[in-house]
Amino acid sequence: MDLIDLFKNKQIGENVTVEGWIRNHRDQKNFGFIDFSDGTCQEHLQIVYDDSLPNFDEIKKLLVGCAIEASGTIIESKGSQDIELQATSIKILGTCPSDYPLQAKGRPTREFLREIAYLRPRTNLFQAVFRVRSIAAYAIHKYFQERGYVYFHAPIITASDCEGAGEMFQVTTLPLDELKGKLDYTKDFFGKLAGLTVSGQLEAETFALSYKKTYTFGPTFRAENSNTKVHASEFWMIEPEMAFCDLEGDMDVMEDMLKYVVKYVLDNAPQEIDLFDKFVEKGLKEKLERLVNSEFTRIDHKDVITILKKANVEWEFEPEYGQDIAKEHEKYITDYFNGPVFIKNWPKDIKAFYMKQNSDNETVAAVDLEVPGAGELMGGSQREENYEKLLNRMEELNMETSALDWYLNLRKYGGCVHSGFGMGFERLLIYLTGVENIRDVIPYPRTPGNCDY
Amino acid sequence: MDLIDLFKNKQIGENVTVEGWIRNHRDQKNFGFIDFSDGTCQEHLQIVYDDSLPNFDEIKKLLVGCAIEASGTIIESKGSQDIELQATSIKILGTCPSDYPLQAKGRPTREFLREIAYLRPRTNLFQAVFRVRSIAAYAIHKYFQERGYVYFHAPIITASDCEGAGEMFQVTTLPLDELKGKLDYTKDFFGKLAGLTVSGQLEAETFALSYKKTYTFGPTFRAENSNTKVHASEFWMIEPEMAFCDLEGDMDVMEDMLKYVVKYVLDNAPQEIDLFDKFVEKGLKEKLERLVNSEFTRIDHKDVITILKKANVEWEFEPEYGQDIAKEHEKYITDYFNGPVFIKNWPKDIKAFYMKQNSDNETVAAVDLEVPGAGELMGGSQREENYEKLLNRMEELNMETSALDWYLNLRKYGGCVHSGFGMGFERLLIYLTGVENIRDVIPYPRTPGNCDY
Repeated sequence: MDLIDLFKNKQIGENVTVEGWIRNHRDQKNFGFIDFSDGTCQEHLQIVYDDSLPNFDEIKKLLVGCAIEASGTIIESKGSQDIELQATSIKILGTCPSDYPLQAKGRPTREFLREIAYLRPRTNLFQAVFRVRSIAAYAIHKYFQERGYVYFHAPIITASDCEGAGEMFQVTTLPLDELKGKLDYTKDFFGKLAGLTVSGQLEAETFALSYKKTYTFGPTFRAENSNTKVHASEFWMIEPEMAFCDLEGDMDVMEDMLKYVVKYVLDNAPQEIDLFDKFVEKGLKEKLERLVNSEFTRIDHKDVITILKKANVEWEFEPEYGQDIAKEHEKYITDYFNGPVFIKNWPKDIKAFYMKQNSDNETVAAVDLEVPGAGELMGGSQREENYEKLLNRMEELNMETSALDWYLNLRKYGGCVHSGFGMGFERLLIYLTGVENIRDVIPYPRTPGNCDY
Repeated sequence: MDLIDLFKNKQIGENVTVEGWIRNHRDQKNFGFIDFSDGTCQEHLQIVYDDSLPNFDEIKKLLVGCAIEASGTIIESKGSQDIELQATSIKILGTCPSDYPLQAKGRPTREFLREIAYLRPRTNLFQAVFRVRSIAAYAIHKYFQERGYVYFHAPIITASDCEGAGEMFQVTTLPLDELKGKLDYTKDFFGKLAGLTVSGQLEAETFALSYKKTYTFGPTFRAENSNTKVHASEFWMIEPEMAFCDLEGDMDVMEDMLKYVVKYVLDNAPQEIDLFDKFVEKGLKEKLERLVNSEFTRIDHKDVITILKKANVEWEFEPEYGQDIAKEHEKYITDYFNGPVFIKNWPKDIKAFYMKQNSDNETVAAVDLEVPGAGELMGGSQREENYEKLLNRMEELNMETSALDWYLNLRKYGGCVHSGFGMGFERLLIYLTGVENIRDVIPYPRTPGNCDY
């Protein structure tokens, strides 16, 4: 029986059998207590045994980390929990040596646990982090599927490049050690230079113009050589894309989706959230509950700059019209509005080529969502649906338009107003768990110089 | 309003506004019929308009592929459908030229449509295929999530190699054109040779031994230079892994999951299934319904060989004890048992190193599921949980054990009986849709020499 079901349907006096691992063990002369977890929920079960068990002497010696099967009766507990298990039988399924790195005593640092990433989901903290990762992923699918969005698997290996070259990993089967000089990619596996996708958005637009509503949820890659707390070389992205939807409609979906996912996690991972609230980020639960019930402000980029300029603050970076905003500005503006803020209509020169050009010729219909305590959580835009305008912008930026003829053609063949956004899944998880390093919300993170497992 | 909601809640006399695309258009002198789809469901809506519309002359000229917004009243239809829309207004949102490749007349071949993969989801067939892809993906998540499995994102870029080298794509950021001779991978992005994963199973086992039940659902890669109907270089895999679960339990999950997913698709994509049944594979619906209600046979590999040897058939490949079985054998055996067959306990020499060695020293606790009309749909095994036996087997096979020390350690630190299986998502889709070429169930397929979009 799974512990999660046992705790849900517990009946004093019931006989059950459970299988899992010893997380702690205190043995006395004639009896002992096992702190037991099977990983199906955050809660542990206390197992009490005594010398009436035929293998009592053997059980007494069991160390932290052992796998056991325990049968017995559910009884009322005298300890901190409602119930415990009075064992009538304990079978040893797998032993564990005394040098097992995860001992019950002492709290290992997160840095140390990164070195033994294959064991860290057995700790309470990481058990909670990766369960929330799973629950949040499901919430995202559930949200979009129940609203008729088609899940689109964007290609991972790609010959197109969404945001400009230079940050892509190259994918090849050429025998590199045997080659000299300029490579001939017509001889490579795909007959041309190929790399790992940095975004599935452009391809997702083809699905939006077929199904009206679509979303991606898959891995994306950046070969940036940056070692920060929030950058990984491999991360998962959610990229919804909606036809017949303008920037206002885009923001409606962003807000509704985020509130749904946060509420789903609050409802479905209450013990995990309590753990984060207690041990990782004080006030996390309240922060999440407030988000679910908050009004999201919508304001133009230029009006944000005006507010920042008027603020009585010594900025490290002076806010300027036409320029990007810094972390300190993000924080100020969410404090100012006391809640999440959509900053929209950005200067076109600092945004991507595919964004809808506004009639002022200076801004594009782009939006970033700034969230208190997290900064930028999502970014989106209305896409340029006008063939000529899009082509001109690509030529202005010296882009190779022939490689994207299919993308341009979407504007010719029944093209229409459409919008979408992207959310980095790990950025959401950092917000949901309070764990601030991206290496701690990915099971096996990839960063410059790190590719274990 | 989405068409799917309109068809669900249709009320004669109701006024609605819909946005979508013209799939066909017949115009008469004073009125016209538009075959209209918005991609939210398989069904199209007929829109009737007449010369009472102020822009009647303009509408008359609209070609297939145009995007429009139509408002009007739902009326009873005289045609094949229940209802149609009597338009009171039609706005043109996006035009489409006469050389648009998807004309209403003529049925383009699947080969031709592969050349314009970005437009093919607009055809009835591919609209259905990729919607079923989305629905089946959700069914898989739903099945595992509702049963407490933790969704595990296996790493995509990896330095380990699950099934032996030679089939992996290499991932690099080295400036290849400038290099000569033996490469120094300590200078590469990850400081070592890295490639694209061929399976997330080994890493998934670390989660099974933490959470009891886990599953992956993500892209995997093979750099095999094979051009067949069933091989792609990039495909999605589902890899569940369960602790405290033996081969029999493994088969229980395989059977239950498959039946659930097939039934979910039958229930949630009835129009798509009807389309496949009518135009792609006659009898498909009955095939799927039979699977849901069938008993799955469980039989040892050696007993399968005995049956094959006794059969009065001229085999192309003679069945042999200790050998793999061929397509013709798979077909015979599912016919013989008139339903799905689990073939279990395979000769160890033709199976992977991590499979549980049976006490006969000749077989391993592996299983393949053979399904009528599809052949092998899934493969799984109980994993070797004995440290010594696993190590010996790896050494026998000349594997580099140091790179997999973490995998071996799982057997030392509370290791226990555990099992899992893998299902190629596209193989399932071929079975569900009757579309036989893997290039037609992946939005943007990657095969040798092909990497468009």
